[in-house]
Amino acid sequence: MNAPVHISEDFLTSIRSIVGEQRVKTDHDSLMTWGKDHTKHFDPNPSVVVFPATTEEVAELVKLANQYHIAITPSGGRTGLSAGAVAANGEMVISLDRMNKVLNFYPADRMVHIQAGMITEQLQNYAEEQGFYYPVDFASSGSSQLGGNIGTNAGGIKVIKYGMTRNWILGLTVVTGKGDILHLNKGMIKNATGYALQHLFIGGEGTLGIVTEAEIKLERQPHDLQVLVLGVPDFDAIMPILHAFQSKIDLTAFEFFGELAMQKVLDNGHVQRPFETACPFYVLLEFEAPYEPIMDKAMEIFEHCMEQGWVLDGVMSQNLEQLHNLWRLREDISESIAPFIPYKNDISVLITHVPAFIKEIDDIVTANYPDFEICWFGHIGDGNLHLNILKPADLNKDEFFAKCQVVNKYVFETVKKYNGSISAEHGVGMTKKPYLGYSRSAEEIEYMKALKKVFDPNDVMNPGKLFDL
Amino acid sequence: MNAPVHISEDFLTSIRSIVGEQRVKTDHDSLMTWGKDHTKHFDPNPSVVVFPATTEEVAELVKLANQYHIAITPSGGRTGLSAGAVAANGEMVISLDRMNKVLNFYPADRMVHIQAGMITEQLQNYAEEQGFYYPVDFASSGSSQLGGNIGTNAGGIKVIKYGMTRNWILGLTVVTGKGDILHLNKGMIKNATGYALQHLFIGGEGTLGIVTEAEIKLERQPHDLQVLVLGVPDFDAIMPILHAFQSKIDLTAFEFFGELAMQKVLDNGHVQRPFETACPFYVLLEFEAPYEPIMDKAMEIFEHCMEQGWVLDGVMSQNLEQLHNLWRLREDISESIAPFIPYKNDISVLITHVPAFIKEIDDIVTANYPDFEICWFGHIGDGNLHLNILKPADLNKDEFFAKCQVVNKYVFETVKKYNGSISAEHGVGMTKKPYLGYSRSAEEIEYMKALKKVFDPNDVMNPGKLFDL
Repeated sequence: MNAPVHISEDFLTSIRSIVGEQRVKTDHDSLMTWGKDHTKHFDPNPSVVVFPATTEEVAELVKLANQYHIAITPSGGRTGLSAGAVAANGEMVISLDRMNKVLNFYPADRMVHIQAGMITEQLQNYAEEQGFYYPVDFASSGSSQLGGNIGTNAGGIKVIKYGMTRNWILGLTVVTGKGDILHLNKGMIKNATGYALQHLFIGGEGTLGIVTEAEIKLERQPHDLQVLVLGVPDFDAIMPILHAFQSKIDLTAFEFFGELAMQKVLDNGHVQRPFETACPFYVLLEFEAPYEPIMDKAMEIFEHCMEQGWVLDGVMSQNLEQLHNLWRLREDISESIAPFIPYKNDISVLITHVPAFIKEIDDIVTANYPDFEICWFGHIGDGNLHLNILKPADLNKDEFFAKCQVVNKYVFETVKKYNGSISAEHGVGMTKKPYLGYSRSAEEIEYMKALKKVFDPNDVMNPGKLFDL
Repeated sequence: MNAPVHISEDFLTSIRSIVGEQRVKTDHDSLMTWGKDHTKHFDPNPSVVVFPATTEEVAELVKLANQYHIAITPSGGRTGLSAGAVAANGEMVISLDRMNKVLNFYPADRMVHIQAGMITEQLQNYAEEQGFYYPVDFASSGSSQLGGNIGTNAGGIKVIKYGMTRNWILGLTVVTGKGDILHLNKGMIKNATGYALQHLFIGGEGTLGIVTEAEIKLERQPHDLQVLVLGVPDFDAIMPILHAFQSKIDLTAFEFFGELAMQKVLDNGHVQRPFETACPFYVLLEFEAPYEPIMDKAMEIFEHCMEQGWVLDGVMSQNLEQLHNLWRLREDISESIAPFIPYKNDISVLITHVPAFIKEIDDIVTANYPDFEICWFGHIGDGNLHLNILKPADLNKDEFFAKCQVVNKYVFETVKKYNGSISAEHGVGMTKKPYLGYSRSAEEIEYMKALKKVFDPNDVMNPGKLFDL
């Protein structure tokens, strides 16, 4: 397949001279593969896919894009859920796939310097080999790349203890939209020398520049993790359980999911129901228990929750295999519902507001989606709900998304009423772009646009994502 | 005293109409008091001091300053050590002293919403009353204000476990240099909706706008804290002690100080030497020990360190009073040396580089300050050194600072060589402004200046701090 018309041969020759002949792809399959992420809302349509190997090559490419007025879509593991990495308008995709190496390791600092194309799981494994731990984890860790995690400030299943990706970034190397290479914060814990520019690139969705390297803090390995899965009668019981445990034990996770989510995971046949009783909802909680008194406390709290009627049944992991299987009940949800082309909501509010908020959202979806399956799950210990609407098999995809977008309005109005976020951890990309105003004020959006102009005056970096200029 | 000529009566009338007659001060004493921070390098010379009570009043004042082209110096607890809050050029000082209230408390979120003029210790006490803990702590907690802590991203003595002020900020209300009120992040743990603007104001030293309110995360209270003070023969022993403890115990602090610092604290007469042996250096470390095996581990590591010759003597707190007294050996240093008008260095490097770095710095100061007392201390577990040069009694202040500035060049060249920070936690202000280029690249500084223009196009916010436009 020839390169689309608006990419000139001259431009292609120039990018080939930067990265080498073999590292520039314009065949249809490559364009379709690297032109999209995990969303299915938009059709990929990039012009060319380029695979640089160094920060300097990325900077050359960005300068060239400015010169030729070509838009760039940075591409990582393509696991994004908001179409932040979909190239739908003839963009040059810059894939970080080849930039996946560890550049340096600083044991005394508990820090590793990596290239941004490294896959999350590779980093987790590398950390473990060094006797440390990288705690940001989620279902797509096996293919998501660190650069993408940084671009969306990815969260996941351990945020309640370890925080978001942002917390683990001690330094970033970025190529700005102007093609400047910046080495930001250089791995320091303490550095009060002016504006913390790295924090704009974290969560910036590749609209200000491309993250090419990162200094990442590691943590000590967790000791003697224990997982509890509890069956819960209704929404109202979830928060009291959180508070009962959290007031006495440092939790490393507090997740929830509904029976429908459980059902979809069980249907896949990899894991079994944790206990006989089918319950409306489930809570999964995890903590370290290196000392006996912690287990005693956990049992005491569990019994208290049973007595209060907050818990109908429960199970505790007895060994590492059981722990992994209990985690799969939660971790496999996204993959298990993917075939149903879910419309994904990723909303958050203060934990204080969760009980009232969840009721209102439930009323909205029950009233508006009487015939759709509603799959509830999320990182409820952080106030983060994943509300997935499943497409009925007999409904056309476009009709389905159109219907969801009508209901979105009610959902996001409720988010706004509670001062919440329309995207807790997936980012805005293209799918949430029309709704940004529900979470950010008009003034904030104007400042964001002005900041983009500072780093990317020609709007070459991932245009059309986050907001339209 | 009349208002200085360049502040018009018209302007004064307008600010009085915003905050009330009693909240505008132009008398000499007030100007001298609120026109300075804890530094002694620059003479205060503000035109007027204003005490607003609300975010809205602050926004009115900022708009007025834009209209009249009057520069603003935001003022908190005035404990700054880099002259970031000194009004030396006829500025309007906006003091947050009256904005010191708790606005809301969210126990389920472990979060408190405060006004930025709240004093750090008041927040610590408030948290404790609610059964929680605010972990950012330092010697000046009794008078520093949260707004100032945020403006410099203050660190202190618990960073090794709890991180900098930045880690505890879940939301900020700011008035930008244009006079816009922004409610940033609104307390959420997870919120991936575009650029994290709050992180520019954290550490922004009041040059982009004024922080007026903050949502601050609280932590559970620490359990059964233990403090060890160890006598150490030389610099080389410090890092092995850190690694020996850190690999087996979660430390909440790891501080160091030299015998001279100890001596100055003892001279004040409030506390006693922790053990007979006078040692060249001391390490103070702290950890939670709610379970017996942790104490056993600590004793084992202590004995190992003695055997290795890293530790000459040591003492462990036996009760809360002893714990506080051991902490005072470290915490009283700043106050004890203040009468000697110290020239304060606040530098940091990667922990990996500390041993080599500290040797080079020692060589520089020994060679260049043969007659000055050099007071070593710092948060060495974070790679942060406080190197204080004490003014000899018979030397003129200006001569002393001039001499220090000559040596600074060598110190900061070494910082740059190790990719370190010329200001780890005090900020840049005016005292470190000439040296910013040792830690930030020319491109970074250009981007910072461009960002300032976005939020503060008329340069009314704390001009002359951080950099000159």
